[in-house]
Amino acid sequence: MLTTIPTFSDIKRAHQRISQYISQTPVMTSQNIDDVAGCSLYFKCENFQKVGAFKMRGASNAIFSYRPEDREKGFACHSSGNHGQAVALASKLAGAKAYIIMPENSSKVKMAAVRSYGAEVVLCEPNDVSREQTCANIIDEKGAVLIHPFNDYNIIAGQATACKELLEEVDDLDSVITPVGGGGLAAGTALCAHYIEPNLNVYLGEPTEVDDTYHSLKAGKIIPNKSANTIADGLKTTIGEKNFEILKDHVKEVFTVTEQEIIDAMKLIWERMKIVIEPSSAVAFASILKNKSVFEGKKVGIILTGGNVDLTKLPF
Amino acid sequence: MLTTIPTFSDIKRAHQRISQYISQTPVMTSQNIDDVAGCSLYFKCENFQKVGAFKMRGASNAIFSYRPEDREKGFACHSSGNHGQAVALASKLAGAKAYIIMPENSSKVKMAAVRSYGAEVVLCEPNDVSREQTCANIIDEKGAVLIHPFNDYNIIAGQATACKELLEEVDDLDSVITPVGGGGLAAGTALCAHYIEPNLNVYLGEPTEVDDTYHSLKAGKIIPNKSANTIADGLKTTIGEKNFEILKDHVKEVFTVTEQEIIDAMKLIWERMKIVIEPSSAVAFASILKNKSVFEGKKVGIILTGGNVDLTKLPF
Repeated sequence: MLTTIPTFSDIKRAHQRISQYISQTPVMTSQNIDDVAGCSLYFKCENFQKVGAFKMRGASNAIFSYRPEDREKGFACHSSGNHGQAVALASKLAGAKAYIIMPENSSKVKMAAVRSYGAEVVLCEPNDVSREQTCANIIDEKGAVLIHPFNDYNIIAGQATACKELLEEVDDLDSVITPVGGGGLAAGTALCAHYIEPNLNVYLGEPTEVDDTYHSLKAGKIIPNKSANTIADGLKTTIGEKNFEILKDHVKEVFTVTEQEIIDAMKLIWERMKIVIEPSSAVAFASILKNKSVFEGKKVGIILTGGNVDLTKLPF
Repeated sequence: MLTTIPTFSDIKRAHQRISQYISQTPVMTSQNIDDVAGCSLYFKCENFQKVGAFKMRGASNAIFSYRPEDREKGFACHSSGNHGQAVALASKLAGAKAYIIMPENSSKVKMAAVRSYGAEVVLCEPNDVSREQTCANIIDEKGAVLIHPFNDYNIIAGQATACKELLEEVDDLDSVITPVGGGGLAAGTALCAHYIEPNLNVYLGEPTEVDDTYHSLKAGKIIPNKSANTIADGLKTTIGEKNFEILKDHVKEVFTVTEQEIIDAMKLIWERMKIVIEPSSAVAFASILKNKSVFEGKKVGIILTGGNVDLTKLPF
């Protein structure tokens, strides 16, 4: 188990460890989108990843980092989103039990998805206190191991493998951009880019409504979000400590975008690229559209984080 | 210009002719979808094709089959859909003018798309008589060449290249299935499959609401559609004569599906595969879901025809 910032060897080992459990997702390009953006974009399509999101990388790495005898009592996490599904599927693949703590008002579709991977859904009240307490109880009762969604070096090393694949496939990128929430993908990407191409510019995109990372990097310390009022439901969390330490050293700039900018960018990708991405995924692309002069004529890698949306509740 | 049923050499020449103007689209698979369908599906993703549909293949082949000196007066077609966009873009790439006849009640988005490829939109009244007459007038006035959307051997040879790429990429398919409307793709696929793998079963999917091909193949003669009342707007046309002659010899069975079956199949592909396909594209997949015993355990190629949908008017 990693207890310090992952080295490049750690990331390579993570990649090897998880390669049989994840999809090597395609990198897509679109002349039409490039024309709109004014730069050459290389989309790493983690919406095509197993469970529909990059979260499968980190969860697999964290779970398979445990020795088989340490997996026996199972794994737990609290998540009503992609991390919960990823822990459920990775546990199943590891032959381990999984306990996914979900608020009782979670959608039935999401509960069914978690159960379809053989995990046990444990309901809690829809607030932070109940969620934490329920999770602590399960860990106490069952002896299950907590898999944190982002503030964990094994998770960070796992998420880093998306950027590794992107840089192995596409040469001479000028910059790479991801959205940032808790910072698992952002930190993994920033680290991996630093190791492979130290001159690569790493940018992050964040909803203006939950711009803790923007303010935290300016202030040099974590400044928690005051609201969670964004359509980009994967990005509501405040940045983790381990994640912040990495971003501090390796991120060039954080761009913030409004809710309407996120929705417009999401719609543009659906329309022109014919792929389904979730709002969180659109935040990085929205940042490029809003800051065209920064990226003009450049070769830019962009990680599309996931594609899990409720098709009956689209914002357009 | 082809005046008889395309040979395999004609299809190979078509492929060579258009290769620089089209995308070699990916073949996607999905464990999740295979589990639902009970067979192994190989999706040829023409929703990622230029203009968002396979129609680019046929239009490019037809237009580039003309010698440069014969392209000078431009090309014309009547289409408010994908064929219109394809003729517009292929004409642009050939350095030729394009006149696209569209009903005056066509959506502004569709007109804008055609114009964005440099074509001239010529409006007509929203009925067959006005459409035909307006098109004839343009051909008369401008000397433009008509590019028929399906009843044309050059179009058929162009559309056949999608199946050619699929069979070059995936070995040992048991069958291949496409939707059928006018029959350009269906005839091209049936021919190409026949030339490359004579034992391959060729199936077609058709909306029950416009099941002219189903009835025509049974009767041994073309029986036109009585209605055009389907969400699969690419499949409203009655089968063409040249197309029918080919299908008669090379199609094993036509399956028909209801509107609800089309919508359900479309939603399943969006949700599980994270790609945007139009209703016409879902007809072949819906046919598989409805006839699972035919395909059980088999390796099946399926051509996803396009991804042009109005995201603000989804049926779910």
